[in-house]
Amino acid sequence: MYYIGIDVGGTGIQMGLVNEEGQIVYRGAIKTKVEDGFNKQVKDMAECALAMCADNGVSLDEVKAIGAGVPGITDPHTGAVIFCTNLGWYQVPFATEFQKYINKPVYVDNDATVAGLAEYVAGAAVGTSSCVTLTLGTGVGSGVVVNGKVWSGAHGAGSEFGHTILVADGVPCTCGNKGCVERYCSATAIIRMGREACAEHPESAIMTAAGSLENINAKHIIDAAKAGDPVGVKVFGDYVHYLGLAISGIMNMWDPDIIVLGGGVANAGDFLLDAVRAEAKKYVLYKDVEYAPIVRAKLGTEAGIIGAAMLGLNA
Amino acid sequence: MYYIGIDVGGTGIQMGLVNEEGQIVYRGAIKTKVEDGFNKQVKDMAECALAMCADNGVSLDEVKAIGAGVPGITDPHTGAVIFCTNLGWYQVPFATEFQKYINKPVYVDNDATVAGLAEYVAGAAVGTSSCVTLTLGTGVGSGVVVNGKVWSGAHGAGSEFGHTILVADGVPCTCGNKGCVERYCSATAIIRMGREACAEHPESAIMTAAGSLENINAKHIIDAAKAGDPVGVKVFGDYVHYLGLAISGIMNMWDPDIIVLGGGVANAGDFLLDAVRAEAKKYVLYKDVEYAPIVRAKLGTEAGIIGAAMLGLNA
Repeated sequence: MYYIGIDVGGTGIQMGLVNEEGQIVYRGAIKTKVEDGFNKQVKDMAECALAMCADNGVSLDEVKAIGAGVPGITDPHTGAVIFCTNLGWYQVPFATEFQKYINKPVYVDNDATVAGLAEYVAGAAVGTSSCVTLTLGTGVGSGVVVNGKVWSGAHGAGSEFGHTILVADGVPCTCGNKGCVERYCSATAIIRMGREACAEHPESAIMTAAGSLENINAKHIIDAAKAGDPVGVKVFGDYVHYLGLAISGIMNMWDPDIIVLGGGVANAGDFLLDAVRAEAKKYVLYKDVEYAPIVRAKLGTEAGIIGAAMLGLNA
Repeated sequence: MYYIGIDVGGTGIQMGLVNEEGQIVYRGAIKTKVEDGFNKQVKDMAECALAMCADNGVSLDEVKAIGAGVPGITDPHTGAVIFCTNLGWYQVPFATEFQKYINKPVYVDNDATVAGLAEYVAGAAVGTSSCVTLTLGTGVGSGVVVNGKVWSGAHGAGSEFGHTILVADGVPCTCGNKGCVERYCSATAIIRMGREACAEHPESAIMTAAGSLENINAKHIIDAAKAGDPVGVKVFGDYVHYLGLAISGIMNMWDPDIIVLGGGVANAGDFLLDAVRAEAKKYVLYKDVEYAPIVRAKLGTEAGIIGAAMLGLNA
């Protein structure tokens, strides 16, 4: 049996036929056309999915369920999308609308949540029964699995670790609050810290590589830290401190089997992960008890399709 | 059928025969004798449990399971207590030892976790399928239920919300870290804030009521706030701010059906709860989506016996 997974993004919609092992066997894609409106967008998705099956000789009898991951908030009970700003969707009955074209069970959940599910089914957390996956990108997304089941909250509004407070009354966040995890642990955060440090220390190797404050990215900072540049080392250390504190909170409260780090910043690999492991360890409450290893995500951008598909398997 | 629940405390051990509705029908109690050592302590507990059954005409055939809540860390998979400082227990096989006397399934978990389970089965969270119960006392304990099952972590070390970070690099905590939730949201925290404020403002109504800095308790501060005393209002407001921030983190990450507040501070009732509800609402990420109501715990000190007993029902 196959599961159709749809990764609904702001610029493109990627989909795949996924087997029960969480492997993508066939693919499809369409552009995101916000101007088309919800009904037409769903029709185009369903037609793309039907064509993906037909083109590869897969009968709908072989498709068990359809799942979609969206950058927004969903109601897992009804399959509605409560809102998804990038797509222009507000309170739309996604599952019901999609079933007009393919009458199978349709599941929908948040994109960071399905990425976490993907790592659980087919990635870095295979063999565990609980995991928290953090996506360190523009923001900090999180996907949670507890007792083998994806958890995005009783109202579909949970798993927003990026918007829990790490520094009460700290740096203002895009969400309107102050001191959110996202403001200290995202790619955006390390870039902000890098820019602030380079404004005071334009002699830093970060500036030599980036050319200007505006051009600074996470890789410039991490490379400078690797090379021993004092400003790079300081900014990297500050970032690792906050990320270690935040992750220790996951260990102390959720205590999952494993913690998975994905997103652009995690591309720094063990240079980052080893530092974060050492820092988080300082703040774990019960150091004599086994706690979650911190590992790198395995699935990259495929996590969106795989995790969406696996909503049907995990339901 | 009955379940035996044992609330293992540092000074006394309370137990009860609990029915499937979570009501205590018979009780027993012994003193905690740390000097007796683990084996003798367990023997005394089992004998007390057997006597409680015999004295009330309850056959062991009517007892389905035994559960214990301990102020420490347990391994829910093996029924071992990893450590429980107050009892002097380190890596002790609680379930196995207890079964020498009563050969039934024996469960053991953290005391704050079982208090949360009690509220779920028979208290303020009845009818929900996920809840987070915070016990605001000397520290901040937490008990979590997800998808109808108690969750104390993959390694038994989770559900320690009191030791997640709320103020990175903030007030030093007894655990060795800085800025833990417990340092801002416990009874100890509001008392510390009250003492600091009264040291600068000895004219406060808090001091009139308490007589000295050392005598200040949470009730003095809350009563002063109710009466409009400026220092009382300020300290209470600061406490509510931190508690609201912390609770918003639970809403944004766990998104449970309901959040239950127990412990001494929660005795302030709606005066506190209304303020916390308003404060937490400010920091909820998705204000248009339903989020957890904040309610007061119902079971008080009975939660320890009831929740321990219900470990067997919930397993």
